[in-house]
Amino acid sequence: MAEGISLEELQLAARNHGMPLEALRYDLTPVGLHYLLIHYDIPAVDPDTWTLTVGGQVAERLSLRLADLKEREAVEVTATMECAGNGRAALIPRPVSQPWLLEAVGTARWRGVRLASLLEEAQLLEEAVDVVFTGLDRGIEKGVEQRYQRALPVEVAFSDDLLLAYEMNGAPLLPQHGFPLRLVVPGWYGMTNVKWLTSITAVDEPFAGYQHAAAYRLRASEEEEGTPVTRMAPRSLMVPPGIPDFHTRARTLERGPVLLQGRAWSGHAAVNGVEVSLDDGATWQEAALEPGASPWAWRRWTFGWEAEPGRYVLACRASDEAGNAQPDGPSWNVGGYSNNAVQRVPVTVA
Amino acid sequence: MAEGISLEELQLAARNHGMPLEALRYDLTPVGLHYLLIHYDIPAVDPDTWTLTVGGQVAERLSLRLADLKEREAVEVTATMECAGNGRAALIPRPVSQPWLLEAVGTARWRGVRLASLLEEAQLLEEAVDVVFTGLDRGIEKGVEQRYQRALPVEVAFSDDLLLAYEMNGAPLLPQHGFPLRLVVPGWYGMTNVKWLTSITAVDEPFAGYQHAAAYRLRASEEEEGTPVTRMAPRSLMVPPGIPDFHTRARTLERGPVLLQGRAWSGHAAVNGVEVSLDDGATWQEAALEPGASPWAWRRWTFGWEAEPGRYVLACRASDEAGNAQPDGPSWNVGGYSNNAVQRVPVTVA
Repeated sequence: MAEGISLEELQLAARNHGMPLEALRYDLTPVGLHYLLIHYDIPAVDPDTWTLTVGGQVAERLSLRLADLKEREAVEVTATMECAGNGRAALIPRPVSQPWLLEAVGTARWRGVRLASLLEEAQLLEEAVDVVFTGLDRGIEKGVEQRYQRALPVEVAFSDDLLLAYEMNGAPLLPQHGFPLRLVVPGWYGMTNVKWLTSITAVDEPFAGYQHAAAYRLRASEEEEGTPVTRMAPRSLMVPPGIPDFHTRARTLERGPVLLQGRAWSGHAAVNGVEVSLDDGATWQEAALEPGASPWAWRRWTFGWEAEPGRYVLACRASDEAGNAQPDGPSWNVGGYSNNAVQRVPVTVA
Repeated sequence: MAEGISLEELQLAARNHGMPLEALRYDLTPVGLHYLLIHYDIPAVDPDTWTLTVGGQVAERLSLRLADLKEREAVEVTATMECAGNGRAALIPRPVSQPWLLEAVGTARWRGVRLASLLEEAQLLEEAVDVVFTGLDRGIEKGVEQRYQRALPVEVAFSDDLLLAYEMNGAPLLPQHGFPLRLVVPGWYGMTNVKWLTSITAVDEPFAGYQHAAAYRLRASEEEEGTPVTRMAPRSLMVPPGIPDFHTRARTLERGPVLLQGRAWSGHAAVNGVEVSLDDGATWQEAALEPGASPWAWRRWTFGWEAEPGRYVLACRASDEAGNAQPDGPSWNVGGYSNNAVQRVPVTVA
């Protein structure tokens, strides 16, 4: 890390929490350990007066209460969700925003209504090109006051797996996860999964709101237009083995057999391989991969290691069926997005 | 903040999460927003093989499964819990540990078995002076490998309100809050509320383990013996009004009536007053105080403000019936504990 974290970054780190990496052991991330990134404040929402409107370029405008949504057919999807800024704190120079190391991830079972079925009910007009999702959270970014908004192209919005979720892991959404309703877009980075959803609007021009035009773009310089951040790049993370030092988090383990384990995911295609290195990436060996709970959920992997005394830098890396693989080091961009460089875990075997 | 946060401090901040201050609006902190401080890793505990032993200076050694505990009479307590290190990041120089700003707090409804009833069952011998609580979490601190352990004097351990809790807010403890069982000591800072409890041991000499002798002492220098950190000093925190800037968290609000609100607590005695300042502490006015859910739970306060355009530094401070009050600025100590200096919230009214 080039420079110390500033007070402004610390304020964000104290609010937005990651998933401690030992929680990679759980298929479903226990509530409260799933990562959270909240741009503004958690809004106070009264479920009795809350409504969702579906409008804009539609033939049938909808206004729905929570009970209306729960009366419709429910579907479930287990999905891994990662913040687009995960890995940001490893970039040099470090883009100033939420200073994630590697913990901005989690896997949840979401339950709700298929987005496509509501869009069909509203009968999108042919003019519609984008669908805009607006949350109830309000704040200011770079001088622009806004409610948090993200959009999807119409053809993506009609995909089968997209959900308007009112439950997470079998319980009503918690306030911090978007109560009473959030969008879930499996495979995409978290910024697309709009929380505290209050309206869905079909628009006849490509959406150019702040979170599309200014934020969440891969750009080499501020002047560049760049390309939008969309799907999660492949990543593998391991449970750091052994026991930690409280202050440094340095790991120590005993000699003998160790089962290294972790999870791997990609938003582009199925993960088809995870490799482990015991020598800081000089040589690599295949890990054993287990099936995921769904095509959108992380896959567990394991690797047996006969640990001999010494110092090691462990590493792991994933690839997917679309041909994407993790790079050894980060590639810098203005916003600090999508840094899926290989994780390294120094350990001492005593 | 004197110097930037180091990588080691950031690693801790990424794992241990605070409660976003807008969550002061809830009487009970929603699961996942309650603060967390985990010295080592969250241990994986199999509830089917887990046991609690009560031993040492006792006439009847007990070995209890979770089902045995649930068969006993259940009691509940609603308690506010705060990390002893809350406010540490404001100290200059900053003690290097978890860099809390102000968010290390939460209020939960705990349910479990009265500690005193189990100690009575085990029949403590007259020789017993301290009761030692050992968790399953293991790690290293300043070179000392250990399971997390804290102790209480026998007379405190027999107090009526102490609990061995297996439920939090009506659900089984989550892994990160100490599943399957934790100690709850209302009024004391969090370090005493041992998680992943596996044994309770009555000892005939004052306990001098690492977390008593080396950590959690108020000391002006490393050489000093110091005094133990015990009960929570009084503190009031407010919900920052208006809307935030994402990157700086700076607050903006509209002119007109604003209901300032917050919570106040003390581990020494009942909170008997909260004052609000609109001018950075130059003048103070009484806030309206509401009753708490229990003698150990924070009390809500409100203060009506007719906001005129301008820049303000809002502040609030609490006092308790034992005569304790919040200081205007921090008092430094080696470990960075118990900094209950007055909260300040700069705002711009537009």
